[in-house]
Amino acid sequence: MRLYMGLVHYPVYNRNEQRIASAVTTVDLHDLARIARTYAVRELLVITPLADQQELVNRVRRHWTAGFGASYNPDRKTAVELIAMATSLEEAIERIHSLEREAPCVVATDATRQKENMLSFAAMRTMIHEDRLLFLLFGTAWGLDQDVLRQSNAVLEPVLGVDGYNHLSVRAAAAIILDRLVGTNRIP
Amino acid sequence: MRLYMGLVHYPVYNRNEQRIASAVTTVDLHDLARIARTYAVRELLVITPLADQQELVNRVRRHWTAGFGASYNPDRKTAVELIAMATSLEEAIERIHSLEREAPCVVATDATRQKENMLSFAAMRTMIHEDRLLFLLFGTAWGLDQDVLRQSNAVLEPVLGVDGYNHLSVRAAAAIILDRLVGTNRIP
Repeated sequence: MRLYMGLVHYPVYNRNEQRIASAVTTVDLHDLARIARTYAVRELLVITPLADQQELVNRVRRHWTAGFGASYNPDRKTAVELIAMATSLEEAIERIHSLEREAPCVVATDATRQKENMLSFAAMRTMIHEDRLLFLLFGTAWGLDQDVLRQSNAVLEPVLGVDGYNHLSVRAAAAIILDRLVGTNRIP
Repeated sequence: MRLYMGLVHYPVYNRNEQRIASAVTTVDLHDLARIARTYAVRELLVITPLADQQELVNRVRRHWTAGFGASYNPDRKTAVELIAMATSLEEAIERIHSLEREAPCVVATDATRQKENMLSFAAMRTMIHEDRLLFLLFGTAWGLDQDVLRQSNAVLEPVLGVDGYNHLSVRAAAAIILDRLVGTNRIP
């Protein structure tokens, strides 16, 4: 399995559909790192161009992997260790490329169904089992900028609830999506 | 579908396996309310015996259902409306009993596999489709006290990742579990 996750803080939308750089939150880092660890994701790349936000990510990572947190909670250490930094989506892709000596197939996520380039959960699950190198992107705030969707190789189909409500947190959506793609004791 | 969720703050364990009342966090309330809304859960019962924590829950509920938040974000309103309060597990069960005129079947969740009384995801999914009245409990902090597990009618099997790591946040675990039990466009 060669799956990477990206948590994108720029470019994303705010509630008025303006392009923004969102703030890093520690709850996102901890939840997504543990989701990544649970489902054997190789790295969680946190993407932000803002230096102070990068420093926050690095501080969290240091505390839980080398600082007091590493001995206080070793289970958290093995999750937070998966966090890596990138200043842009391009830099994140380059990092994966250089680590794996291959360009990843970039798959964006979005809460609404796309007209073009949509990848089903079943198709992506198959790609994972075929050991394809994949980079799965999650947007913070009000979601990934359309430019990211257009630049990606595919957009994953959205998680549908019971009646079309589609306002899960990125933490909940990422958990569900990874479970659908990689989970082992799912209902057959 | 007659499914209720409970978010238990007492009795739960701390990291030293001592019985505690944990603090309510707004991120849990918002994430779990949106998960409940996505999967057509009837109510999210937040269980805490602490008056100041109950007041925090009520303040969040008021802000997003009647206050500024209701007009600022109507999608959040329809989720947060599902939050109800109970001071104890017994009171939560009584509330469901009086709303539905029937005693619910109480199903606890736990990160480790139980020797007795374990319910599989498939079996619980069937019960949901049979319109059984169910109350699914999630523990905060280091998880539900053994007494809660013993008092429940069943304990749901744990979410297994790839290699047995089982330290998801309650937010991520609840998202995955509800999707496995109720999700519609899961992989067949």
